[in-house]
Amino acid sequence: MLASGKDVVTANKALLAEHGNELYRAARENGRCIAFEASCAGGMPIVSAIRTGLAGNSINSMYGIVNGTCNYVLSNMTARNQDFAEALAEAQAKGYAEADPTLDICGGDSAHKLAILASIAFGYEIALDDIFVEGIEGVSIDDIRYGGEMGYCLKLLAIGQRHEDGKISLRVHPSFIAKDCSLARVVGPFNAVSVFGSAVGEVMFYGRGAGMMPTASAVVADIIDVALGNSGTTFEHLNLRSRSETLPLMEEMDNLVSRAYIRIMCKDMPGVVAQWSRVLADHDISISGAIQHEDTGPDNTVPVVIATHPARQKNISAALEDMEQLEVVGGKPICIRIVDIPEDKD
Amino acid sequence: MLASGKDVVTANKALLAEHGNELYRAARENGRCIAFEASCAGGMPIVSAIRTGLAGNSINSMYGIVNGTCNYVLSNMTARNQDFAEALAEAQAKGYAEADPTLDICGGDSAHKLAILASIAFGYEIALDDIFVEGIEGVSIDDIRYGGEMGYCLKLLAIGQRHEDGKISLRVHPSFIAKDCSLARVVGPFNAVSVFGSAVGEVMFYGRGAGMMPTASAVVADIIDVALGNSGTTFEHLNLRSRSETLPLMEEMDNLVSRAYIRIMCKDMPGVVAQWSRVLADHDISISGAIQHEDTGPDNTVPVVIATHPARQKNISAALEDMEQLEVVGGKPICIRIVDIPEDKD
Repeated sequence: MLASGKDVVTANKALLAEHGNELYRAARENGRCIAFEASCAGGMPIVSAIRTGLAGNSINSMYGIVNGTCNYVLSNMTARNQDFAEALAEAQAKGYAEADPTLDICGGDSAHKLAILASIAFGYEIALDDIFVEGIEGVSIDDIRYGGEMGYCLKLLAIGQRHEDGKISLRVHPSFIAKDCSLARVVGPFNAVSVFGSAVGEVMFYGRGAGMMPTASAVVADIIDVALGNSGTTFEHLNLRSRSETLPLMEEMDNLVSRAYIRIMCKDMPGVVAQWSRVLADHDISISGAIQHEDTGPDNTVPVVIATHPARQKNISAALEDMEQLEVVGGKPICIRIVDIPEDKD
Repeated sequence: MLASGKDVVTANKALLAEHGNELYRAARENGRCIAFEASCAGGMPIVSAIRTGLAGNSINSMYGIVNGTCNYVLSNMTARNQDFAEALAEAQAKGYAEADPTLDICGGDSAHKLAILASIAFGYEIALDDIFVEGIEGVSIDDIRYGGEMGYCLKLLAIGQRHEDGKISLRVHPSFIAKDCSLARVVGPFNAVSVFGSAVGEVMFYGRGAGMMPTASAVVADIIDVALGNSGTTFEHLNLRSRSETLPLMEEMDNLVSRAYIRIMCKDMPGVVAQWSRVLADHDISISGAIQHEDTGPDNTVPVVIATHPARQKNISAALEDMEQLEVVGGKPICIRIVDIPEDKD
């Protein structure tokens, strides 16, 4: 279509996430445009907001709940104490999850949207491979409860950050966020994206991320925009930096600094705390809080839940491996990243 | 400027609220455009969202916290139990309120923004006179507390509604809204607007409504948009229905149906409840809840707080007048409208 001189309006996020860079280039070369408001977050006009409304800003970061299925499942696990399978079955029964929910649940759909939004926000040709992805399929109701007791709410977040050194990190993973932050209050099938701009501070967009009518709303807006000839910006804004410029900027997940929630199942015997705390200290990980719960797990183990101060991912991974080797620890430790969304406060 | 063939980018909301209709017409006649993203809610791209992102929708209603000064004052009265004068003085000390805060506090600034947003959302030439305006200058900390006990949070809302009969109502007034709704969580100097579109459902925008940088962000976005020649839609979208078409559609405030919070100071004697409840019944107003508080007011009166079911404004006004005449009631009753923001839920 582009080569034959037609403009394109699409809601196909997988297409754009996988082949957007080529398509944008083809559009520029043929003097045509591709409009794709409906590809991200349904009827919320987030694509046009980033491309035009926030054009005067350098976008520093974005934090999004962009998959309604996952948010519906996590909201029900949190509010109604359902386990994952139960919450997913309900989501399927209500039409919020596909019969094969893999793409949603495993984070792939969120990664598609992040690839598109990060491309236009940061101005680089993003590839799906640049994005670290972890889904919610392994999330346990216990961790939602224990995290909740520490003041956190579990969300599947898509996060794009431009760090002070110019590096860009892109990731989708279950994230504990403070219960009183705006995104924590987005429940059920709704989507929301907080964007932090250099001039504007935080701007948040909230609405339905999917569904026939919200998607139609976005497609129609694009059609009107293209028909009126207002998509000239497309060529400018989609003139993304090439892959060869983008690749060196991509931050390795291992280098990322983040807080973490760690749960280990410990034998209830003397010296346990000394052992796991030693492992963390050896890897330069500082503890911000810890609770030993009285619930009993397999082999008479008890859950010990630890929140860390910011630490490098590779140190956390190494510590988790060492902890698993401890005789007093039963099974694989659970680790969920804690994400501190910046507060735009006075 | 328009006549001499220049496009205009402005952040001047008073200008547009008072003379927008003429200016939009002059722009159309001269083939120029007026861009005014910065006139409403600072850096939040709400103007472009309504004009382009939601162009495929018929906008049914909008509910906005669009004045940061008032929201800052009410937030502090609510959270820190400050009285109005104290909260306003703090807002002035922190630069969130002008030395003469009248335009903000009395609702004028919110009305300016509502006039602009309602024009583009509904497509009619709105005049400031179409808007019913009540400010927060008379709000008492007692009512914030009593309303809070009934589950409500007090906000100054700018409300635009297109009713089922085609009538349009526009109003700015202190509003009790459910504590758990999205707008209730918008605190301090922040702004937020919930827009309900026919296709998209609820879309909410949140961000800084004022300040040098957020305003600059919006102005720059407009300049880029105009410079790239993308404001062709201006002419279409600002082709508003004339005043002669608009005027007959404007709903009288008296005809509006709304719930109300009413506080009367009653003498503590037998038969009091029978008297005030009779007045309400006589005016066809049904009670959804009532609390008699033990605090003592002037002349040994006690506050009785009543929440009503939806009732016509003129009935409520008449009931308030009759209540004031009752011998068992001391002073003028206080009335604050309760606004039920539609829930876009599943």
